[in-house]
Amino acid sequence: MSKAPEEEHPVKAFGWAARDSSGHLSPFNFSRRETGEEDVRFKVLYCGICHTDLHIIKNEWGFSHYPVVPGHEIVGEVTEIGSKVKKVKVGDKVGVGCLVGACHSCENCKNDLESYCPSLIYSYASTYHDGTRTYGGYSDSMVANERYVVRFPDSLPLDAGAPLLCAGITVYSPLKYFGLAEPGKHVGIVGLGGLGHVAVKFAKAFGAKVTVISTSPSKKNEALQHLGADSFLVSKDQDQMEAARGTLDGIIDTVSAVHSILPFLGLLKSHGKLVLVGIPDKPLELPVFPIIMGRKTVAGSSIGGMKETQEMIDFAGQHNITAEIEVIPMDYVNKAMERLAKNDVRYRFVIDIGNSLAASKP
Amino acid sequence: MSKAPEEEHPVKAFGWAARDSSGHLSPFNFSRRETGEEDVRFKVLYCGICHTDLHIIKNEWGFSHYPVVPGHEIVGEVTEIGSKVKKVKVGDKVGVGCLVGACHSCENCKNDLESYCPSLIYSYASTYHDGTRTYGGYSDSMVANERYVVRFPDSLPLDAGAPLLCAGITVYSPLKYFGLAEPGKHVGIVGLGGLGHVAVKFAKAFGAKVTVISTSPSKKNEALQHLGADSFLVSKDQDQMEAARGTLDGIIDTVSAVHSILPFLGLLKSHGKLVLVGIPDKPLELPVFPIIMGRKTVAGSSIGGMKETQEMIDFAGQHNITAEIEVIPMDYVNKAMERLAKNDVRYRFVIDIGNSLAASKP
Repeated sequence: MSKAPEEEHPVKAFGWAARDSSGHLSPFNFSRRETGEEDVRFKVLYCGICHTDLHIIKNEWGFSHYPVVPGHEIVGEVTEIGSKVKKVKVGDKVGVGCLVGACHSCENCKNDLESYCPSLIYSYASTYHDGTRTYGGYSDSMVANERYVVRFPDSLPLDAGAPLLCAGITVYSPLKYFGLAEPGKHVGIVGLGGLGHVAVKFAKAFGAKVTVISTSPSKKNEALQHLGADSFLVSKDQDQMEAARGTLDGIIDTVSAVHSILPFLGLLKSHGKLVLVGIPDKPLELPVFPIIMGRKTVAGSSIGGMKETQEMIDFAGQHNITAEIEVIPMDYVNKAMERLAKNDVRYRFVIDIGNSLAASKP
Repeated sequence: MSKAPEEEHPVKAFGWAARDSSGHLSPFNFSRRETGEEDVRFKVLYCGICHTDLHIIKNEWGFSHYPVVPGHEIVGEVTEIGSKVKKVKVGDKVGVGCLVGACHSCENCKNDLESYCPSLIYSYASTYHDGTRTYGGYSDSMVANERYVVRFPDSLPLDAGAPLLCAGITVYSPLKYFGLAEPGKHVGIVGLGGLGHVAVKFAKAFGAKVTVISTSPSKKNEALQHLGADSFLVSKDQDQMEAARGTLDGIIDTVSAVHSILPFLGLLKSHGKLVLVGIPDKPLELPVFPIIMGRKTVAGSSIGGMKETQEMIDFAGQHNITAEIEVIPMDYVNKAMERLAKNDVRYRFVIDIGNSLAASKP
């Protein structure tokens, strides 16, 4: 029988947790481990709300264990470091994303690809090396092995930078790996939500030509005027789609609903790559003829390793890339989840933990 | 109104053609163009029977125009060359595969990737630059632009080498392009038919470790003893498949029936590649979770360009790679098609055109 969350570890912690698949979040007392010799402890200042948080608190993927303290776009200020920590010092601004652990001995870990380690440990709703549950960033403090702690560039605002720790690396990594992060490439971004809007910014910063593909004609101005995309296609407009046939080197498809990929395969040049980063809950249809006749690729990509996450955030700092956010207080989180379920946010909620969590204590 | 096939061109030709979607083949008088200045004319000696021939003569893909003279694994001896031809001379052994033309101005053509040119012209059942239909290798002679003529290595037997012009390049090209043609790589070959058995030989010659995956346990000995594969998996044996989970760098999937790719994705390591070269007539199911979690790729590949086809046949000559064949006379072709439809051939029929076509003349 495991101990109660408050008594598992020596250091008291407070956050908001879901207790069942209603997904309703409410104040929650728990505990965190002491600062180990390779650990970094920090006061959480902001935490982004990712669509994954919504899936997990409602147990939509079927493997949630309650209570769940969500949050994996976590930024804050270092309050304590272990004796062997070299990466940061007390007072530094840092972030933790989706991962807090992995095996460190497999091929993926050796190649700085922790996000593909079969024993990876997520920042919340996962089991840590010591057998206790991990709790995420909707909480007052965080402690993590320094390998999983990212140094936050001074130039990057903490609130609008927080979502980069998940949304940012999720699109940055495939742009790089699939050879799309280059001037001269023409990149399509499907879906203009939390992931998609950041993908547009990174692809533009890499020097690529960017086309946004969306079901909503209403997003055209936003895509072109505000985010700087070069062109916009309404995916249901057959004429527009036909005119753009065979023009893209690659596409980052951020849609997590079941959808047809055939129109997007048509937009690709020969040898083009369609990279899926959203996870529909059912298989998609894979038309074989078009991928064979054009030697096209359909691939997936999952977040990114810690070395690349640091590279991504440094790049964002240099190029002033941030997420478009709506900052909310902690006690607005349930309302925010309702709005997120309806895609009623442009484009990411970020909880102002530092200024509002303490006041939410019962 | 176009001319009758016998009168279209000045040079008489004789072959076997299908006249309707019954697919029944019978003797057929037609004509071929004179030898143009960049053309190579040759007497056909052998022609392989590809599964595509069966699809086309029965109009299973819906775009056949009759009469159809099939055959795109064509080898023979040069009888005449145009004034500008440099590649071969009279008396040389040569081959023509799936292609006889393309635009020569698009990016793919410029990069020696004629098989992905949007204006590619197939060796039969296609329309040539002059507006006439192309006729394939089930015929006494062939004429083609030298770009589409492959020099046949002296060391390669003409009969067992012929199938390499389609089956060989179809598997050689993706092994190279997707980085699987290297010592140390572990490659899976799904399906041990006309394509698969040649894929095993090429992958072994590249120095890769090769696992054959088949629904038929009866093919194990053949795969291991005769073709030199390193291991064999029965795809329906859950225990075998589970034990091999995450072991392959890439898979060439030669199956053209609708099938589940989920088990094959499970066999791949992270970042592994599943390459489809068979064309099912309906979309496959694409499970998204496994490709995202392992950054896996599902891709397609279609034959190969002419430069690579020459490279492939030279490599085959150096490594003594040939297809396993059953040589048949011309008048056995309808029976051979029946057997092919039941996969009753190990592994490729080759028609002995040189010694049997003339005798079939009515």
